[in-house]
Amino acid sequence: MSTNVYVAGVGSTKFGVLPGRNLQGLAAEAARAALVDSNIPSARIGCVFVGNFVGGIMTGQELLGPIVAADLGLSNVAAIKIEAACASSSAAARIGHDLIRAGAEDAVLVIGVERLTGAPRDALTSAMTAAIDQGTEGVAGLTFPGFWGMVMARHMHLYGTTREQVAAVTVKNRKFGVGNPLAQFQKLVTPDEVLASPPISDPIRRYDCCPATDGAAALVLTNETLAKQYGSPAVRIAASVLINGPARITDYDEITTHDGTVRAAIRAYEIAGVGPEDIDVAELHDCFSVAEIVDSEDLGFFAKGEGGPAVAGAPSARNSKVVINPSGGLLSKGHPTGATGCGQIYEVVMQLRGRHPNQVPNARFGLTHNGGGTAAAVTVHILETSR
Amino acid sequence: MSTNVYVAGVGSTKFGVLPGRNLQGLAAEAARAALVDSNIPSARIGCVFVGNFVGGIMTGQELLGPIVAADLGLSNVAAIKIEAACASSSAAARIGHDLIRAGAEDAVLVIGVERLTGAPRDALTSAMTAAIDQGTEGVAGLTFPGFWGMVMARHMHLYGTTREQVAAVTVKNRKFGVGNPLAQFQKLVTPDEVLASPPISDPIRRYDCCPATDGAAALVLTNETLAKQYGSPAVRIAASVLINGPARITDYDEITTHDGTVRAAIRAYEIAGVGPEDIDVAELHDCFSVAEIVDSEDLGFFAKGEGGPAVAGAPSARNSKVVINPSGGLLSKGHPTGATGCGQIYEVVMQLRGRHPNQVPNARFGLTHNGGGTAAAVTVHILETSR
Repeated sequence: MSTNVYVAGVGSTKFGVLPGRNLQGLAAEAARAALVDSNIPSARIGCVFVGNFVGGIMTGQELLGPIVAADLGLSNVAAIKIEAACASSSAAARIGHDLIRAGAEDAVLVIGVERLTGAPRDALTSAMTAAIDQGTEGVAGLTFPGFWGMVMARHMHLYGTTREQVAAVTVKNRKFGVGNPLAQFQKLVTPDEVLASPPISDPIRRYDCCPATDGAAALVLTNETLAKQYGSPAVRIAASVLINGPARITDYDEITTHDGTVRAAIRAYEIAGVGPEDIDVAELHDCFSVAEIVDSEDLGFFAKGEGGPAVAGAPSARNSKVVINPSGGLLSKGHPTGATGCGQIYEVVMQLRGRHPNQVPNARFGLTHNGGGTAAAVTVHILETSR
Repeated sequence: MSTNVYVAGVGSTKFGVLPGRNLQGLAAEAARAALVDSNIPSARIGCVFVGNFVGGIMTGQELLGPIVAADLGLSNVAAIKIEAACASSSAAARIGHDLIRAGAEDAVLVIGVERLTGAPRDALTSAMTAAIDQGTEGVAGLTFPGFWGMVMARHMHLYGTTREQVAAVTVKNRKFGVGNPLAQFQKLVTPDEVLASPPISDPIRRYDCCPATDGAAALVLTNETLAKQYGSPAVRIAASVLINGPARITDYDEITTHDGTVRAAIRAYEIAGVGPEDIDVAELHDCFSVAEIVDSEDLGFFAKGEGGPAVAGAPSARNSKVVINPSGGLLSKGHPTGATGCGQIYEVVMQLRGRHPNQVPNARFGLTHNGGGTAAAVTVHILETSR
């Protein structure tokens, strides 16, 4: 009795430093673009899910669901905010997907939005730690550069991953960013520049870190009937998975393997009936350069310890055809936390439509991976072209 | 292909001033009680939805879904926070209900939690305005006592509602609060005491306002199969509606009639196949005393303008058998914003089980009404006893 679920429309603002814009305005801009792109009348939308992480802390604004719905002229919807830290809007996509798949809704508007710039740097660092349990590791002083610094040091120790291999992630994603007009950073960096950038949380340096970003992205999800009726340029969601992982470092057996990602990937491949070898293009959660390496291993693209050599171009490590983060990733496109998940799906949809500025030739299967907290909330989406 | 949805288990902390407790701990306490009450093994839970409004602003803590799930030992769930201001956890119940009803999930744990005490008073007032559009009416200085003060003045002007009738709401709900061990206020007030309490936002006085409250409540929702299999003391959800209303005062034609409530009620009665005359007990969103009067009219219990005379005991205004807010309501039980929606459902479930400390005799149908912002997010749940 379940229907296929399609991404009928996508929309996005520019990602970057967007002074003078508020959450409502950014969200509405992306949503309007997605509605137009979908060709589906907005009266068919049953739910508006706004993925957002720190809108309350950073801007004092909550209740984004009804406010944005009103701005869009939608007066008869179930409108809520969904929060799962940096995985907020992909988590919202998962709930929308499930409602449509089971037949509870015909069309759902999923929006991700965040404003992170314009605040003092310590306010931002403090806001981000809202995704760390303040009752335990938060009060102990843990931050995300701290967490990922430990992950990077441990990955180098366990697998012999080199500083240069990790820097290759930034170099690659900066190159992709140059080609993506939505990207925050459109400037190349050299390996030497990464290695010489100021230390942040040893061994992480500044160019290993994604920037603070403002932006919004939106998706119109729908069922087979409406996708056909309105002839929208649909991409099918072959799998939509949200799963929880360890919410504290102390719950990890080994911090270089992210249990939530591993389990989400296994389930997503099973649902979609494909394996990592079938994925042509992937947008991964490279909040720090080493994260892309860890993710690429946990998602099965490379064996554990082979992610570093693979990104640095080692032929033997390449047991996958996947192109990773042709959007520029979080490192170059930027990381407007609550918007990132929808932004990743936006990018993969454009790839599967054959309309991406950094097009992967003949892309058929795309994957997105989005994580919140210490990989405490993980989503994996597998998308398939309907062309 | 849809299944009936049941509230298989409920749990709640005390509502009140709970110093030293954090959101995670309160949420886990209520959730554990609901899981035990349901008799359903926690391994059957597919989603954990945490309704919370200002956890970020007031405590700096987000990502409550995965953190609370981890504390409950749930390691394989879709765990998110859902926010719709003061309707956050009833909105979460609606999403959980829909997923179960359509067959996408077998059992969902819905938790509402908030901590509002312990902060300076202006910090709390400021936090609450996160439910007002800061791009328009927020920057103009609107607060919720301001909004409800206008509603009250206008209701008195249009319908001749008296100051004494509005005070009767507080007097009634304080009386109920004395009988409810979960209630924050367990002390009677007289009409004179209400009228003599300090002015807050003319004509609203202090005893017209709900208090700042800490607390959590939780529900285990499930399908017919699991409810029968585990013999849980189930109450059926006959209707679960979430709808958006005007998100700004300027979007209202008339602020004494809340369009979102009217439409949510019409839809809920239609889905449940009952009318307001069938409802035995109702928990309404009396954040201010006049709100209960407005709600009781918009939900169809009384004609417009008859809510005031009805609460003051006018026999002619009584075209309904409903008992309103026997929990003590937000005015006496308290208003831990994100927890209030689940708390209301907790109260009605206890009534329908025949186990409420302020039991309404032979209660068969119960209704909850929960609103966020300027009635910008409204939920109506209709519950039916399975006894």
